[in-house]
Formats: sequence, C-alpha cells, structure tokens
Amino acid sequence: MSKIKVGVVGATGYAGAEICRLVFGHPEAELAAISSVSFEGMALSEVYPAYYGLQDMVCGGQEEVVEKSDVVFAALPHGLSQDLAAQCHKLGKCFIDMGADFRLEDEAAYKEWYGGEYTDKALHKEAVYGLPELFREGIKGKKLIANPGCYTTAVPLALAPAIENGLMEMTGLVCDCKSGVTGAGRKPVQSNHYPELNESFTAYKVANHRHTPEIEQTLSRLSGEDVKVTFVPHLLPINRGILATCYAKLKPDVTADQLWEAYHARYDGEFFVRLLPRGQVANVKNVRYTNFCDVSLFVDSRTGTLIAISAIDNMVKGAAGQAVQNMNLSFGLEETAGLVLLPPAF
Amino acid sequence: MSKIKVGVVGATGYAGAEICRLVFGHPEAELAAISSVSFEGMALSEVYPAYYGLQDMVCGGQEEVVEKSDVVFAALPHGLSQDLAAQCHKLGKCFIDMGADFRLEDEAAYKEWYGGEYTDKALHKEAVYGLPELFREGIKGKKLIANPGCYTTAVPLALAPAIENGLMEMTGLVCDCKSGVTGAGRKPVQSNHYPELNESFTAYKVANHRHTPEIEQTLSRLSGEDVKVTFVPHLLPINRGILATCYAKLKPDVTADQLWEAYHARYDGEFFVRLLPRGQVANVKNVRYTNFCDVSLFVDSRTGTLIAISAIDNMVKGAAGQAVQNMNLSFGLEETAGLVLLPPAF
Amino acid sequence: MSKIKVGVVGATGYAGAEICRLVFGHPEAELAAISSVSFEGMALSEVYPAYYGLQDMVCGGQEEVVEKSDVVFAALPHGLSQDLAAQCHKLGKCFIDMGADFRLEDEAAYKEWYGGEYTDKALHKEAVYGLPELFREGIKGKKLIANPGCYTTAVPLALAPAIENGLMEMTGLVCDCKSGVTGAGRKPVQSNHYPELNESFTAYKVANHRHTPEIEQTLSRLSGEDVKVTFVPHLLPINRGILATCYAKLKPDVTADQLWEAYHARYDGEFFVRLLPRGQVANVKNVRYTNFCDVSLFVDSRTGTLIAISAIDNMVKGAAGQAVQNMNLSFGLEETAGLVLLPPAF
Amino acid sequence: MSKIKVGVVGATGYAGAEICRLVFGHPEAELAAISSVSFEGMALSEVYPAYYGLQDMVCGGQEEVVEKSDVVFAALPHGLSQDLAAQCHKLGKCFIDMGADFRLEDEAAYKEWYGGEYTDKALHKEAVYGLPELFREGIKGKKLIANPGCYTTAVPLALAPAIENGLMEMTGLVCDCKSGVTGAGRKPVQSNHYPELNESFTAYKVANHRHTPEIEQTLSRLSGEDVKVTFVPHLLPINRGILATCYAKLKPDVTADQLWEAYHARYDGEFFVRLLPRGQVANVKNVRYTNFCDVSLFVDSRTGTLIAISAIDNMVKGAAGQAVQNMNLSFGLEETAGLVLLPPAF
Repeated sequence: MSKIKVGVVGATGYAGAEICRLVFGHPEAELAAISSVSFEGMALSEVYPAYYGLQDMVCGGQEEVVEKSDVVFAALPHGLSQDLAAQCHKLGKCFIDMGADFRLEDEAAYKEWYGGEYTDKALHKEAVYGLPELFREGIKGKKLIANPGCYTTAVPLALAPAIENGLMEMTGLVCDCKSGVTGAGRKPVQSNHYPELNESFTAYKVANHRHTPEIEQTLSRLSGEDVKVTFVPHLLPINRGILATCYAKLKPDVTADQLWEAYHARYDGEFFVRLLPRGQVANVKNVRYTNFCDVSLFVDSRTGTLIAISAIDNMVKGAAGQAVQNMNLSFGLEETAGLVLLPPAF
Repeated sequence: MSKIKVGVVGATGYAGAEICRLVFGHPEAELAAISSVSFEGMALSEVYPAYYGLQDMVCGGQEEVVEKSDVVFAALPHGLSQDLAAQCHKLGKCFIDMGADFRLEDEAAYKEWYGGEYTDKALHKEAVYGLPELFREGIKGKKLIANPGCYTTAVPLALAPAIENGLMEMTGLVCDCKSGVTGAGRKPVQSNHYPELNESFTAYKVANHRHTPEIEQTLSRLSGEDVKVTFVPHLLPINRGILATCYAKLKPDVTADQLWEAYHARYDGEFFVRLLPRGQVANVKNVRYTNFCDVSLFVDSRTGTLIAISAIDNMVKGAAGQAVQNMNLSFGLEETAGLVLLPPAF
Repeated sequence: MSKIKVGVVGATGYAGAEICRLVFGHPEAELAAISSVSFEGMALSEVYPAYYGLQDMVCGGQEEVVEKSDVVFAALPHGLSQDLAAQCHKLGKCFIDMGADFRLEDEAAYKEWYGGEYTDKALHKEAVYGLPELFREGIKGKKLIANPGCYTTAVPLALAPAIENGLMEMTGLVCDCKSGVTGAGRKPVQSNHYPELNESFTAYKVANHRHTPEIEQTLSRLSGEDVKVTFVPHLLPINRGILATCYAKLKPDVTADQLWEAYHARYDGEFFVRLLPRGQVANVKNVRYTNFCDVSLFVDSRTGTLIAISAIDNMVKGAAGQAVQNMNLSFGLEETAGLVLLPPAF
Repeated sequence: MSKIKVGVVGATGYAGAEICRLVFGHPEAELAAISSVSFEGMALSEVYPAYYGLQDMVCGGQEEVVEKSDVVFAALPHGLSQDLAAQCHKLGKCFIDMGADFRLEDEAAYKEWYGGEYTDKALHKEAVYGLPELFREGIKGKKLIANPGCYTTAVPLALAPAIENGLMEMTGLVCDCKSGVTGAGRKPVQSNHYPELNESFTAYKVANHRHTPEIEQTLSRLSGEDVKVTFVPHLLPINRGILATCYAKLKPDVTADQLWEAYHARYDGEFFVRLLPRGQVANVKNVRYTNFCDVSLFVDSRTGTLIAISAIDNMVKGAAGQAVQNMNLSFGLEETAGLVLLPPAF
C-alpha cells in the first residue's frame, strides 16, 4: 500500500515543524509538500538546522500542498483556515486544522473571543472536534477535523472521569495551568526574549485567555450542564509541556476510592493517557516529545476538593501529535501509528 | 553608635548564607559570628566561592555565636530551635527563628504537621509572628521572633486587603503556588539534581504541605474565622522566587473598584509591597534578590472570582530579608535599613 | 528472524537508561534483562517515570543479564568491567563496554589516569575501539567492543580529515570542550545541584581529565605521530550535548578549499556525521536525542589556525547511540538500525 | 557636597539600564536624566518593571541628558557617539562611551571592523581607554573615556601578569570565550528567542568578532609586540557572565611558581580582581551582579601551556560597572564607590 501523502500549510511554525518531525517517523505516511508564507523557497532545514540532511524539503505555496496531499494539516493564524478547509472539502481531501477556526460550535463565542465570523456555516457543521480519548467515534473516517488547543486538551483529560461519573460539582472550577514557551510560537517577542523569560515566572491573560470557551465547551459536553471555569495560564521558562492543576468541589460523600475507580475504568484502556499510581504527580518532563497525557489524582479531604493534575507536551498531545492521532483515526490506521515513542528520561 | 552584632546559626545553608549577604550591605549591623554543623572550621567563602575575599569568616560553634552576638538568626531544621531560643532569651539576646518551631500558636497543629512538642510553653507565648506588613506593632522591640515561611508570606500578602475588608468568602480558597528550587535547600537530592529538574515542572506535597496550617493561622487571624485552604505547591526550574496565585469567591456585589480601593488603601504606604498597576501581573523576576512583594489583582467577573497574584523572592522576603526587616523592627532601626535594593532588571 | 536479546548491566544510570530508550525503538533488538546494584527489584519506570507503562522491566542481577542476553552493554564504574567481559567472552556473547576499561591500548596510560591494572592482558588484546566512522572495519563482527567516551568521540571526528590528509600540525593542539551535565551521571552531587549549576559556567579538571590519553590515542593512531593535546572540559548548564572547539596550526600553504575538500571526501558518505555548509556553526541543540555528529569548519587566516567545531549528544553519539551502532556492526545489521531519528527542532 | 549628576543616553538598553541600577546604590552620584529613542516619554520602570516604584524616571531626549548631567554615559550603536562626545567635550562634561567608537587607536582597524571613520581625529586623541586595572593612571581626571567591551576586559585581565613579566609567547594565542546572552542586547532576535537558545550551545562569529582588534590592541600595548590572537566567542544559555579560557605557550623554563608569583604581585592589591587559590576555577556564577573579575591559573606541563581562565559579569565589569569605576576615577572619588557588592551565592 502506498503511504498517505501529508501536506503541511505553515510548516515553519513550531506546530508545523513538529508535524514534519512526527511524519518522518510514521510508518504509513510521508511528507508530500509543505508551505510557508515567510520562508517560501527555503528548505525546512534552513529554518530548523536540526533537520539538516534528513528533511530538506523546500517550502512551496499553499496550492501545491493541497494538490499533492491526501491530508492537509493547517497551522495558520486564526481566521485563515476557513477558505482552505472549503477547498480541501471540495476536493475530498482530509483537512486537519491546528488553529481555532473550527473548534467552537457556538459562532457567538467565536466572535466574542476571536473576533471573526463563520463564512460557511454548513462547512462548520461538518467539522468534528478531535479529542480522541473523549470523542473517538465521531472522528473516525471524518475529513474535517478541528484539532484541539493545548490547554483545552490537558484540562478535560484531567477531569473527564470525575465529570462523566457525576462525582464533582460543575461550579467553582479553577484551572491553574502552566505552559512551556513553545506554545507562544516561533516569532521572537520581547516577553520571550531569552534574558527576559529566563529565571522568570508569571501568569498571563488572567481569566481572559481564548481557550476558556473551548474548555467550557468540552466540559459542558461531558457534563450536560452549562459550565463556566476560572482559567489562568502561566508561562514556564521551559520549552515544552503543560501542567494543568484543576480544582473542583467534590459532590457530597464522594470518596477517593470512588474517584480512583472511575479514573481507572475510564483510562486503563487508553494508550495515550497514563493514570499514575497513587501519590505520584504528573510532571511535564515525563511526557516530552511524545503524545502521552499523564494524569494524577488527589483529594484534599480537609476541604472536600478534587485536585486533578495532568501533563502533556504542548507541541505533541497539545498540537502535532494529536493531529497525527486524528489523521490515523480519519484514515482507519492503527490509532497509535507513528506515535509509540518512549519519552526521554532526561 | 556601634553596629549591631549579628550571629547566624546554620550559616552555610541557603537562608543563612543569604542573611550574611544582606548583613554585608547593612549600614547598622555587622556579622560577628557564624556556625555550621557541616562546615565547622571552614570559611564561608569556601562553601560559597562567590563570597571570596569579601566574607571569609570561619564557621565556629553555636556557643560562640550566642556569645558574640546581639541578635541570633537561626536557620535550623525544625525541632532544634527551642533550646537555643531559651538560651538567648535568658541572656537577653534577640532571637529570630527562620524555622517553624515558633510559628504556630496551636501546639496541636505543630504536633500534627511537624511531629514535635513545645517543651517550654511559656517561651512559646513570648514569640511573635514576624510578618511586618500585617503585624508590625507586635514585632517592635520584641526579642523572640518567628520568621514566617515563604509561601506563608506570599499568600497572606496577596489576600490581606480583601479579607480585612470582608470582600471575599473565606471558604473555597485555592492557593496554587510555585516556588524556585532554592526553597528546598542546599543539600543535593535526586529531585533537584540538575538534569532531573531542568525542563521539568510538577506539583509536590499536594494538599499536604506543612505551610498549610501556617497560612490558615494568618488568614484566620485576619478574618476572625476558622479558615481552611486548599494549598498546592509546585516546583519551578528557576533558582529564586515564589508566585502565589490565589483564588477566592467574591462576596455578592463586590466590584473590582472596591477591591482596588481596598488594596491601595492597605498597601500604598508599605515600602516592600508594590501593588502593580491594573493589568500588570506580578512576576518573580521583578523581585529577585530584594525584599519586595509585588501584588497584582484580577477579577474574573464571569465566575465571580478574585484572583490575587503575588511574587516574592523566597530567599529574601520569604526568608532572610524579612528576618532582617524583623531585626530592624526589634532594634528600633529604620525598617528598611539594609534592604533598599533595586531588583536587577535581568 | 528473532530479535537480538539485549542486556544492560547498570541500567539505571543515565547511559544505561538511554540504551533502554534506544532499544525500545530498535526494529531488530529487544530488551531481555537489566540489572542495577542500587535499584535491584525495582522497575526501570520507578526510577525513570517517563518510561511508565512502556518499559517497566524490573532490575535483576548481573548474572541474569548475562544469561538472557545475546549482547551485554555494561555501564559500570571503571575497573568493574573486566570480569564481566571475561565471562561474556567465555560464553561467546557480545560485550560492549560503556566504561573506560578497554579503551586504552597502553596499560601504563590506564594505570596513570585510572589507577588500575589489566588483569587479563589477552582479553584486552581482543578488544576493539568502537568509533565506527574512524575504525569501522575493525568493529564488524567483533564481540568485545570498547565504546568511546563522549569528548573522545567529538574531538577526533572534528579533526580526522585534517589529520588524515596531513593538513595540520600535530603539536600545539587545543581542545576546548563544553559538555551538558548528564555526562556527570545520575548521582546528585553539590556541583550539579540545580541552584548551584543553574546560571553558572566554569571549566573543570583543567588539563587533567581522564579523556586526555584516549583523545591522544586516537589522534596518534590517525596521524602516526605521538600526539599530545591540551584539553580543557567545561560544564554547561544544559542537559545534553558536547561542543568541541578544536584549534590546530595549519601546515604551510594549506588553503580553506583544501580543507573543505578533504572534509567532504571523508564525511559525505557518513550517515551520522553531518558536515555543515560553510558559515554554519555546529550547535548541540541540533543533535539532541540522536546519534549525529555535526561538524563545522573555519579557518582563521590572520593566524593560520584551523578551527573545527563538532557537536554531539553526549548520551547518544557520546555513549548509548554509538554503543547501539557498534552492536549493529557486531551483529551484521544495518549500521543505522534503530538510530534514524530526526532531532527535535526545539 | 552635592552628588554627581549622572545622565544616560540609551538608558533602556541593557547596558544603560544596568548603569541606572548601579547609580541607584551609589553614595555620591544620582541619576539626573535619561534618554531613549525607542521609549521616549515612558518611564524606565515601564520598560523594566523590576524598577517599579524605585526608579520611575521618564525617558527624555538626548539634549536634556547633556544639559542636566555632569557625566554622560552613552550606550549607543557604534558610529553614533562621536557627535555626542564632541558636544560634551565642548561643554566640559565627562563623557563615558559604552560603545566602540573611541576604543581603537588605529582608525584603519576601526574602519576595517566597524566600517566607519573618525570624523574628529583630535577628539579621538583625547580619549583614554578605560580598563582601570591596566591603565589606571591615564584615566584619572580624564573626561573622555572609552569603556572597554566585555570580552576585551576578560581576556587581558586573564593574561596581563604573564605578558607584563614576559612569561609567555605572544604568538599562537587562543582565546576561547563564552558569554551570557545579555551581551547581545535587549532586542528580540530569532537566535535568542527562548525556545531556540534554551538547551543550546554554539560558537558565533568564529575568528571574526569585532572585539578581536581591541583585544589585540591591549595585548600589544602590554607586550610591546604586534600581537594577533585567535578569538572564538560562544553563546551560553545563561543571562550574565563571560568566561574567557585563554591558552598561551609558556616561554622555555617558566615554572608554575613563577607564574603564581607574578599574578599575586600584580593582583593582590586590586580590589576588583580576585586571584583564586590554586586549583579553583573561575565561574561566572561567582561574579554575577558585581564588578569583580575572578582569575584562575593553570599550567599544562605536558604541553607547556599556560591556561588562564577569567570570569566577569558582562553587564557589570564588562560594561556598566567598569563605566562607573571609570567615572569614579575621573571625578576623583574612591575607585570602588557604589561597587562594593557581595555577589549572591545562588
């Protein structure tokens, strides 16, 4: 069988480059074409010398990517995916959007948080939300997939079993999240200039981050209620990883054992979710460069609080890896194909 | 006037070494004697080559420190300060305890969280809790001062104005804190071995950290209620700094303007607390090597949540700097003496 | 064909753990048994939680490793490999020594720098030095392989083409090398305690490092002269990577073009050596987690100096990766099997 | 006596901001005016929030700085200092240039390495080179001072005693230097974007850095010969510090004792140069935030090589601190005024 032809639009951004890295090791897919507005005509390895000699494909235009590919991954600023998605849809190609344009079902929420409109409402109805561990069946075979954001992957995976089993209150949720700096992209900015970020730590977009409505959409879908969360992201002086520390009030009389049972029942069969043994805490270090989401569970019995802590690599399970997982589901491959990697220990 | 003679017991630990650094620049105090169990007979600059040629005092025994000093700072493992404090008390010397032995008023709480007993209950009654911005008047002229812990400085300073003015609920508090690694001390351990901590981030002692009862004691004292908090510390791969992100439910109808007014009224006169302009977020970077506590304030109106974020240098305002501030109060010096330092910008 | 059974003695050290990581992704080898003195009875994933769920093999004893394996990798303190090597030799098993016991041909040099003796001189004669790009033919099919050290891989690969072609003087060589901290091992020590190493940089074992005679042995072998080098290693506050900046006096009238030609002729066919385009400088970042050695070449025409700069991942090409490469050569596999990995770009 | 009025042109760059930090703690100088092209009208503390509440001076224009100040520190891109210097000269104000415009005596060298011309040759003759430990007498009372660069401070201080005493050859010198990233300035660029620089290490401007002729000028002045050096700078993923590892061939029969004697004789009376005890190696960590230059000395007797390793904080002894030291010399103050700081131990 010939390999799936992969195209990446926006290949020189961090998410795009990471897709190229994962496809390099994928047994049933191969890179067919890449594009970049900023680096058209340059080899990917000129932008990322780490790839030198291994992945020297030259960046072309977007049209060429669509033409040569069976699946198009788009890593574009929000607002720019809709036309490309429509084009791929028309040609029967699979389109996996790394951006936010197809994530929110509620157009009003999109307008409020991102400022744009859904130009093709029918197309938006076709889109499925690609968080496989929560919505796997809806993704299989689909050709228009909204790949979730990073925080919006880590938070729901930390809380899903408690929500689905009705073990926690859906009000008063606090999601205190911390992200490595690759989440902010490749473009140099003052706040991520090495001397400024190094030895620093702060929060940003406090209770005002665009991932808020996306987290709420998923938690609402899981709970059947209209959920609001307090979400505060922080910026870590490390390259990769998100740690989500989620606080929820337990329903009366819920025990730690009940929680553990629910989490095991939910996650023991999920390859990419590793429920850690009691007492161990998820650490971003242990999932780096891989598609795993480590989940750890604590109960503060003094205050009746569930504390669920999850860790992902923001560029893999929080972006490119999950996108490849979605491609696998879309094309009927083994879901883990190309993603069975041992995280480096150090 | 001759300078105050300063003694440091446990001078080669991080907190002790930091006191020596601050005393070096203090206009009215000077180092008189230092002790160390592990490095007796060695110069401080052999342990910390940064001090070479400037502070080469040799570590002697504890007795010598008591004898030569007007004030003794003790940086000892918990349980070891009580005898030394009694000895200083008898000799009329000022004793400032960097450890936990005199922090908790409730002996039962001490027993539960630290496992020891108060051998001299009368002595414990003499001790004052040295968080100057909250309890200044009680500290002036006192000779037995319990210097607060790091988290236990950052959290109350973030919330005090809201509590004192009755603007927030005292239940459901979440304190999500992040600390630099110097807080864990000088002794090499696996978890803080460079290759293990570098590029890592995780929580530890989840809802189980010994600073919990100390935070609760201060918040209870401020509010007049019996407060419980959910407190989760995290370990940052940076050397210095604590960021405390505190979440509290606002009382009904409390507005952001009310909060800002209360915070300004409370902190505009405090030299070491810098209430940041609206929109700015406290960052550990901006307080490094100094005694400042930066406080920033946010309201999540979607969920009715107060988010107060404070930043300190855990080794200065969270340890040695606050101890010097307490010394200044005890001896009737200018409270800021030796502590008016501009944080380095990078 | 059944897979090669791999055993690792000293599996919980950094080099051992890295071999386990690489074998996990090897198409023709599989982990059969591991041992550890410090962690016998514990799963590898208890020591390295990154491996949880993927590589949970329990550490047993050394005997078990020998028995179950076709090839034994030994990551032991120097002096401890000789007996184990003899045992494997007797049983006809392949033995790849990660330590220094079989690297030096000259027993006197071993005695001088390491302090031990060669108990079985005949066995030492069997050993081959496993730097494939320089001594490939001698390694194929061999069963006792001394895997080179990290600096001792980076320096010779930087200089080999200039030496082999007689383009540089063999006196006055300066090798200024910088290593990431994993090279110092897993055991926590004061100098690698996070707060001490972070934001620090210094040299160590100045002109006194044990890799000196090993570098000299290889350069002497390449040049046919008795070479002495000035070698100064430095410690970088990063996890992985060695950068070797090597300075040599050019022979009279040698041109930059001659040098480039020699380097291309030598390395264009070597998969794991990437000779960078003119003007680009090797960077440890671009080889992390992979077996590549990036080589960059400069001529200081003002002083007639060749400056060759190479970069490797000290744990891969400088240890475990090269060991797997040697295993591939020993067993007649494709030399690159299990090692064709794209370095992550960030 | 009223304090010296200090003006800083280019105050929002790293060197300028560091001068403001040092002047804040100076007993006999005070900031009078600052300017910035990029941030005119903004407070310094808006650019550097670490300064908030302590140094909130607003950036004005260059004219205002000249008018209000007794001494003007200029931190400008090369080529822009000459006019300003002439203006200050005319008004009898002290001018200390942080840039390169007055460092090189040889205009041809300036033209070759920087590309500009000396418009006012007479003015250039007035300028003195401000490396106090080497040229102190020439600086005292002078009003036009070229403040040395960072590498160009570290290298000569490492070698001066050996050169001045004729103990080393002046050919074949290798200066392998490593700098923290603040040396590259405040402006965000791709190579210093956090995710790119973090966990990286490489050389740059190999044998091609503009500090080369300045190093050669100083070493030539010290030796009386026309010296050429091979100089390779590297970029460390840390904020502050330069480590210079300098290799020189020893003159025949020179002993280590002779070297140590020469170094002690030269440096024991220099407050800011700390000659380390035998066996200790200079570390950038131990001089951070201060004006010290730590010097350590080694002899590789196997190859007859002197290895001198020096460490400075590139922003202090390598820029702003040395500039303040020069101001002190110019105004007849205590040379160490405002600069007696204990480096933080961690």
